[in-house]
Amino acid sequence: MRKIDLSYSDDLLKDHEIIALKEQVILAHNQIHNKTGLGNELLGWLDYPNTYNKEEFNKVKKIAKKIKNDSDILVVIGIGGSYLGARAVIEAINHTFYNLLPKSKRKYPQILFAGNNLSSNYMNDLIEIMEDKDISINVISKSGTTMETTIAFRILKKFMERKYGKEAYKRIYVTTDKEKGLMKTLADKKGYETFVIPDDIGGRFSVLTSVGLLSMAVSGVNIDELINGAKDALEEYSNQNVFENNSYKYAAIRNIFYRKGKDLEILVNYEPSLQFFSEWWKQLFAESEGKDGKGIMPLSLTYSTDLHSLGQYIQDGKRNLFETIINIEKVRSDIRICEDEDDDKEFEFLNGKSVDYVNKKAFEGTKMAHIKGNVPNVVITIPELNEYYLGKLIYFFQKSCALSGYLLGVNPFDQPGVEEYKRNMIRLIKSAQ
Amino acid sequence: MRKIDLSYSDDLLKDHEIIALKEQVILAHNQIHNKTGLGNELLGWLDYPNTYNKEEFNKVKKIAKKIKNDSDILVVIGIGGSYLGARAVIEAINHTFYNLLPKSKRKYPQILFAGNNLSSNYMNDLIEIMEDKDISINVISKSGTTMETTIAFRILKKFMERKYGKEAYKRIYVTTDKEKGLMKTLADKKGYETFVIPDDIGGRFSVLTSVGLLSMAVSGVNIDELINGAKDALEEYSNQNVFENNSYKYAAIRNIFYRKGKDLEILVNYEPSLQFFSEWWKQLFAESEGKDGKGIMPLSLTYSTDLHSLGQYIQDGKRNLFETIINIEKVRSDIRICEDEDDDKEFEFLNGKSVDYVNKKAFEGTKMAHIKGNVPNVVITIPELNEYYLGKLIYFFQKSCALSGYLLGVNPFDQPGVEEYKRNMIRLIKSAQ
Repeated sequence: MRKIDLSYSDDLLKDHEIIALKEQVILAHNQIHNKTGLGNELLGWLDYPNTYNKEEFNKVKKIAKKIKNDSDILVVIGIGGSYLGARAVIEAINHTFYNLLPKSKRKYPQILFAGNNLSSNYMNDLIEIMEDKDISINVISKSGTTMETTIAFRILKKFMERKYGKEAYKRIYVTTDKEKGLMKTLADKKGYETFVIPDDIGGRFSVLTSVGLLSMAVSGVNIDELINGAKDALEEYSNQNVFENNSYKYAAIRNIFYRKGKDLEILVNYEPSLQFFSEWWKQLFAESEGKDGKGIMPLSLTYSTDLHSLGQYIQDGKRNLFETIINIEKVRSDIRICEDEDDDKEFEFLNGKSVDYVNKKAFEGTKMAHIKGNVPNVVITIPELNEYYLGKLIYFFQKSCALSGYLLGVNPFDQPGVEEYKRNMIRLIKSAQ
Repeated sequence: MRKIDLSYSDDLLKDHEIIALKEQVILAHNQIHNKTGLGNELLGWLDYPNTYNKEEFNKVKKIAKKIKNDSDILVVIGIGGSYLGARAVIEAINHTFYNLLPKSKRKYPQILFAGNNLSSNYMNDLIEIMEDKDISINVISKSGTTMETTIAFRILKKFMERKYGKEAYKRIYVTTDKEKGLMKTLADKKGYETFVIPDDIGGRFSVLTSVGLLSMAVSGVNIDELINGAKDALEEYSNQNVFENNSYKYAAIRNIFYRKGKDLEILVNYEPSLQFFSEWWKQLFAESEGKDGKGIMPLSLTYSTDLHSLGQYIQDGKRNLFETIINIEKVRSDIRICEDEDDDKEFEFLNGKSVDYVNKKAFEGTKMAHIKGNVPNVVITIPELNEYYLGKLIYFFQKSCALSGYLLGVNPFDQPGVEEYKRNMIRLIKSAQ
């Protein structure tokens, strides 16, 4: 299997800049592998593709099969790291309009999400969609104290008990701590089947655990291949030499740009189905690096869509940004642009071309335009968008992110800033009693 | 009807800073109203809510009715300003899972979008969804030379001709220039019904023209109310005094923050259905202001969802950002959080509260937290999320944007930077012949 390729224009980044960071990279590599850096109690993801619990993994497959057989809809309740990774892979791999497909073509249950916002309108609309359907629920929370998850689950648990009575518990699956916490206590009391979130893996690094795998498997994602990709990546990205390790090279490059004053990074894709992969990536980097007044702000765009909205800014606005493009060599399906008797001569040049061919030219043309506009472009190329390369890419970014955080000089594994709004919210609600 | 309210914490912005800009605002106001500023040939949106073509408007309603009666799906082909505005309003007003609703509950056709990307995978998946359904198409392009739109239309036109033979033309609606351009020529040749994009309204200011109205009306949006809101806004935001005109005040505030080094603005909502309203807003401001090396980069987030991904950065990362929150006073539907015998005492305080109540406390708590973290918060409040206030809000931002661009010192109505990638792309395709 092929490696993930990394390229960039040397107009805006010189090799000697990477050489200058070579020793810092080795230092950070050792902090990760010797577990001597900040936050080292949360390095469980590092060897996970080798050490993961095979029994748990098989249980995921078994339960996924059951849900496929007895449900029209799987509702996944979770937020942040308990939401984005699963959705990222489900949307990247499946049909663009997966949930819209008629049952005859979809085969597997629809996947809908809850507990990822506090909109009452969303919740009511979701319940309307769930009526008259057979439902399973997977609720995901390490502690069971996340407000969004708790509220959604309390409401949907009632829905399930109204619908299925005493049998409701057989359709509720809880992914949580292995022994403690409100969710675990509740699951034991009610007899819900449970899955384990490992202690040494933080939310944003948990996509390859049961947190992400169950709903992916229900939607038909081949989770074996996903893990295989991550496993190969573990091997490939263990080299401490930045010139022989694209994951580290990417980390070094972002730090170089940041130190030059580029404090915005745009993750760009040319496939709309990668939108949530970018959302997953944003959490990974924003929570890991955005602290102590530091950090690159991660944005994500889909091209050419967003060239028609933010393209003007990127070409010609403030010059504090760089782009990282996920380039997919081979698309799942292409479509030919046939000659059209009605069309004007102006577009004759399209005749016989394919849509993906044009998409690739949009990518090349945009890269040239943006580099000319002084926006550095880093291109990450994967051979195709399948489970194997997605697993590899996930691990690529996780490893990169840890190294990048250490280069920046932060603890890449904590998120102290997320607590402030929660404390305020709870205080405000309680004080109104 | 109530005005749109605007508030901010005076910890991070003092009144004298706005007073200092009062005369600049009057100058910019005069540039708009006397049509003396840069780009003044594109000010058609300014009086549009009064001067719009009533005959065209009625035709939109008539054709929308026809499409509702004879179609399962309306496919809207367009990109940028020919896409985002319609989708923004359709999603803000309708059911969260509009397209997923069973036919018995939806009443009106599904709305799907094409021509807003160059993904072959997307196109093939879309065609699969369209099979065995009755389809209408609305293709939107001023010149008819936008590559994304042209390609999608060429493919879908073939689909329609295969499906409906000689009758296909009766289901294809073209929104384009009133007399010239490839699309108009084609429409005349084939007998397609046409709608007009006015000459003096640029793409990103065109949402209230036929560009946006037709698909909105098909989905059941009350377009009369939308225009009424804009009409009242036209009146309300014609006052040159920045202290008596919230649209101008918002423009002044953003320029004050920008001049302090805050070059990122995050538009925040607490309702997921506003996601595409934010996308529309991003194009409006990014294309209008992001030029000549200047401009605020507009981002958008949905809370509390994204507090669990970008929240850490916003609370504690680089301090170059401010937030503008769209606050909706009254939600369409609320839902009560009932007591639950199974729940732990820790969450007793939720008993009897409603989900929207908690959402509002999340808003207040987050505002306090972020202001404490030195992120200025501007709050724009609308009484409820209906067509009237959405029309008002659209006009509020359009007027703001024009004024803001003049304050910044750019032409708010051109987008020269969007052409560069297009030229490259076409050259690359042609050179490969």
